[in-house]
Amino acid sequence: MISRAFSKVNKNQLIKTVSTNRIVACKNNQTQFIQRFSTSTDNSNNNEQNQQQQQQKEQEPKKKMNKFAFWGGLAVAGLGGFWIIDMVVNDDFDSVTDKFRTRLPESERKKRPKVVILGTGWGSLCFLRKLHTDLFDVTIISPRNYFLFTPLLVGGTTGTVEVRSIMEPIRKYCKRADAEDATFYEAECLSVDPVSKKVKCYDNSAVKGEVSEFELEYDHLIVGVGADNQTFGIPGVKENACFLKEINDTRNIRDKIIDCLETASYPGQPEKEIDRLLNFVVVGGGPSGVEFTAELNDFLQSDLLKTYPLAKRINVTLVEALPHILTIFDKKIIDHVEKRLQSSNNTKIWTKTAVVGVREKEITVKNTTTKEESIHPYGLLVWATGNTPRKITTQIMQSIGPNIQNNRRGLVVDDYFRVAGTDGIWSIGDASINPSKPLAQTAQVASQQGRYLGRLFNQLAEEMNNDLIKKRENPDAHKEEKEKQQEKLNLFNSITGSNKSFEEAVKEKPLFKYKHMGTLAYVGDHQAVAEFKGDHSTTVSEGYITYYLWRSVYFTKLLSVRNRALVSFDWLKSSVFGRDISRG
Amino acid sequence: MISRAFSKVNKNQLIKTVSTNRIVACKNNQTQFIQRFSTSTDNSNNNEQNQQQQQQKEQEPKKKMNKFAFWGGLAVAGLGGFWIIDMVVNDDFDSVTDKFRTRLPESERKKRPKVVILGTGWGSLCFLRKLHTDLFDVTIISPRNYFLFTPLLVGGTTGTVEVRSIMEPIRKYCKRADAEDATFYEAECLSVDPVSKKVKCYDNSAVKGEVSEFELEYDHLIVGVGADNQTFGIPGVKENACFLKEINDTRNIRDKIIDCLETASYPGQPEKEIDRLLNFVVVGGGPSGVEFTAELNDFLQSDLLKTYPLAKRINVTLVEALPHILTIFDKKIIDHVEKRLQSSNNTKIWTKTAVVGVREKEITVKNTTTKEESIHPYGLLVWATGNTPRKITTQIMQSIGPNIQNNRRGLVVDDYFRVAGTDGIWSIGDASINPSKPLAQTAQVASQQGRYLGRLFNQLAEEMNNDLIKKRENPDAHKEEKEKQQEKLNLFNSITGSNKSFEEAVKEKPLFKYKHMGTLAYVGDHQAVAEFKGDHSTTVSEGYITYYLWRSVYFTKLLSVRNRALVSFDWLKSSVFGRDISRG
Repeated sequence: MISRAFSKVNKNQLIKTVSTNRIVACKNNQTQFIQRFSTSTDNSNNNEQNQQQQQQKEQEPKKKMNKFAFWGGLAVAGLGGFWIIDMVVNDDFDSVTDKFRTRLPESERKKRPKVVILGTGWGSLCFLRKLHTDLFDVTIISPRNYFLFTPLLVGGTTGTVEVRSIMEPIRKYCKRADAEDATFYEAECLSVDPVSKKVKCYDNSAVKGEVSEFELEYDHLIVGVGADNQTFGIPGVKENACFLKEINDTRNIRDKIIDCLETASYPGQPEKEIDRLLNFVVVGGGPSGVEFTAELNDFLQSDLLKTYPLAKRINVTLVEALPHILTIFDKKIIDHVEKRLQSSNNTKIWTKTAVVGVREKEITVKNTTTKEESIHPYGLLVWATGNTPRKITTQIMQSIGPNIQNNRRGLVVDDYFRVAGTDGIWSIGDASINPSKPLAQTAQVASQQGRYLGRLFNQLAEEMNNDLIKKRENPDAHKEEKEKQQEKLNLFNSITGSNKSFEEAVKEKPLFKYKHMGTLAYVGDHQAVAEFKGDHSTTVSEGYITYYLWRSVYFTKLLSVRNRALVSFDWLKSSVFGRDISRG
Repeated sequence: MISRAFSKVNKNQLIKTVSTNRIVACKNNQTQFIQRFSTSTDNSNNNEQNQQQQQQKEQEPKKKMNKFAFWGGLAVAGLGGFWIIDMVVNDDFDSVTDKFRTRLPESERKKRPKVVILGTGWGSLCFLRKLHTDLFDVTIISPRNYFLFTPLLVGGTTGTVEVRSIMEPIRKYCKRADAEDATFYEAECLSVDPVSKKVKCYDNSAVKGEVSEFELEYDHLIVGVGADNQTFGIPGVKENACFLKEINDTRNIRDKIIDCLETASYPGQPEKEIDRLLNFVVVGGGPSGVEFTAELNDFLQSDLLKTYPLAKRINVTLVEALPHILTIFDKKIIDHVEKRLQSSNNTKIWTKTAVVGVREKEITVKNTTTKEESIHPYGLLVWATGNTPRKITTQIMQSIGPNIQNNRRGLVVDDYFRVAGTDGIWSIGDASINPSKPLAQTAQVASQQGRYLGRLFNQLAEEMNNDLIKKRENPDAHKEEKEKQQEKLNLFNSITGSNKSFEEAVKEKPLFKYKHMGTLAYVGDHQAVAEFKGDHSTTVSEGYITYYLWRSVYFTKLLSVRNRALVSFDWLKSSVFGRDISRG
């Protein structure tokens, strides 16, 4: 009968019919069978489908969870990786281990050595951050109540970054979740008395109180005041030039660039005067001068030309006394940068040219080879040459005496950054010089020195404390008495477990070893140059990728999440909206 | 046979077997049939499933497209809605229709009326934006080369917003994609000669060129210079107080708040001196004074207390000569705000109290009821009282003569903002007053006036041009000659189609009608007050929702996408990282 059924209905039809769940077949039981068969098959199929759909539905949340877990894991891994890079670049692994160290009990903190830090720059801040502030009574003194991320300062002159994005309040670093808060006074140090171990400070701000001067005692003084602008004694520089060291310098430059353009645009302004106003001179072919020239060119191309009809007449002249700019770099880099900067029609580089005189509207320069002098008008003069010791540094040097302290660069220090000829004065960063191992005056050097010194202090805390006790007990002991006291002290040392003098303890510590991480400089138009000197070889790179490396490195070196967020936004904002040309 | 097959295998088994695609049944054809049937059924089922899966797969991209289209549509609708709100709030619909208007051909632009605009504030900018700059030769003069969004200025005093976020370069508005660029000169107007129709301007910036003064002729002068701070002739105010009008004012205040705290923190600072330094006095109970007090409280609670141990000793005193603060608001609002501000322990409100003397460290106040005077020390004094005419406004008034121009508020204007007693001088914003319809000196009023005047000029362009031709042809005609010329002019008018005088043309235009959109004020701690006055009723609101309304309204009123992005980021930044306390 089945055969007959088959013979009546061809197979295809049957399949089709079956697949559509409608059976048209024999009228008898076979029909019923097929119907029931189909129904049961359909039911089975439905069940299968339902089960499959059910499985799919059950699996959907799981799929979403997996997806979430995947991307979440990737994000965490990314952040973790970044954190590790951050720790490596900023040499900060011990900030993790520090969280588990045993703090000095509060009851024992009254007799801690008093450490006074002068300055809020790279050296001072890195020292402060490393210092275990339960072991020391720490006070910071500076006329500047914030830390400034100097490598990006040049960007503030044109508005690539806003200056507040690279400032961080020092009080933030004084607050210590891990130990005691440090104290900060916003004042300028007038003088240091190395004998009585006192600093005298005064209020140089606009708002003065009844007390506007005060003295502080110290047991250890860290001189991290940085350095001043070197003007080589050339008259007129301080009065007429713009510097590149502080926030107000950048505001001043930013203001003047626009002011020159606006003044040049006046109706009836003579052509020669327009040329003068739009002649911008940058003195100093080091990284600061070169980066500023580069930023100025970017500003010109991206923003000024679109807004000011006269902007095309701007000329930028980079003046350098040495035969080349960027002499700290490899020759290949120097050639590349010189060529690059001068590829723009409006930029010139005058090497072997020294500035010998500055007046309100013109400068006198001299060719160092031919000795020929010439006068050139300018609208804006930016002074980005080297450093010279600050007043306070000079005062300390003078109070120690020229026999010991006579280095033009700053305070002579030993391998442990102890200032020669003093007891308890240390110096790092631009304010100091170790004649046996001179280093460049850079943020990189200062930050490493600060970290080293902070760790050194932590290691020497006990010895410092003992040394302090000795001094407090017997500040003016005579020789015979001293011998008697020495016996007592030996007994004391045997009790405390320390049987060496402070000097010996210091000498046991490893020496500072500067690790050069490389040199980077921005050269304009989204290009940078980089140099990494190994023990046996030097790697140089230049171009767009180096530019992104440059940005990444500085991004990582920014000390806070806030700075990173703000600087990133500034970079984005400048790209999207351009730089702000408002003069205010 | 089927029956027999059924009898051998029970139905369930059969169903199960069939559903698993394995038939164990009769060995004969029935088996084969069932197998083939099952197979074909399976095949059919497989095909069904495959088809369904296929359909699902085909549908997936469609689903994604639908999802994309949905969200994309939502985003577009959202943006579109926002754009409409923007147009409504800023009364800018004609900026759309303007794109399709017919421009004046370039060949006819040489004889356009010269319009000179003094100022870059609300009135001047809104006028400029509405003006069809192909019909007029436009020059803007101001010592400030940017527009400042004043409603958010108070936020700049504490760092809730950064000042650059509320500045926009005026040159951006001079560039006109739709017509000719306007010209901008960054200079201060020294004097106006209404008779010869000339303005004399000078360079008051640091960078001066050979030409630092110039004169410009005008056919129509718009005086939108705003107003100066009213000090009521009280000695010592200008030297010692901080104002709340310009960018530098906010920087000054921000600097001083921190300076007071830092100076108070000096070791050995006497208690009384600390109290003085931390006593902040705000003079003026209008919206500016109240908002500043509110911002100061926020700054104190959110940031200063966390950083400065002495911050808890800060006292803020709001001084107002009238019986209440915020007198422009409804009584209910006033009560609420007074109660709110004083709920904080450190804020006091002194109403019916006038400041009568200011010295470097103290003020003298007088109770307006009892006439009793008292002296109070202060560290920071902020002056947020009313307005007084600027020097240039006073100079114009004087050159017109006191018979006509003698209103203390500013230049008397008619219903069309024409300055009484002059030909071709118009004035809007804080610099002007229509005695018959006096309005508050607010940004809202100035912006509506500016827009109205811009549209009026566009409508009167032809008549202005004709009027100009008449004047140029016969500036000094005598009476008899004038009659002859009148005939010629009538002929001229009949040719041009204009048969009315300029005066008549002006009078035909609709009058300015100020539409008050409401008043908002921030009162601290994420709360604001709002008042909307209808024809018959007043709606007031206060609280958190009003705060978000306040922010939304100002967000919408910001004139550029850049400002909106920057201000939004500032608000976010302040919430996440707190305000910056760096003094720099």
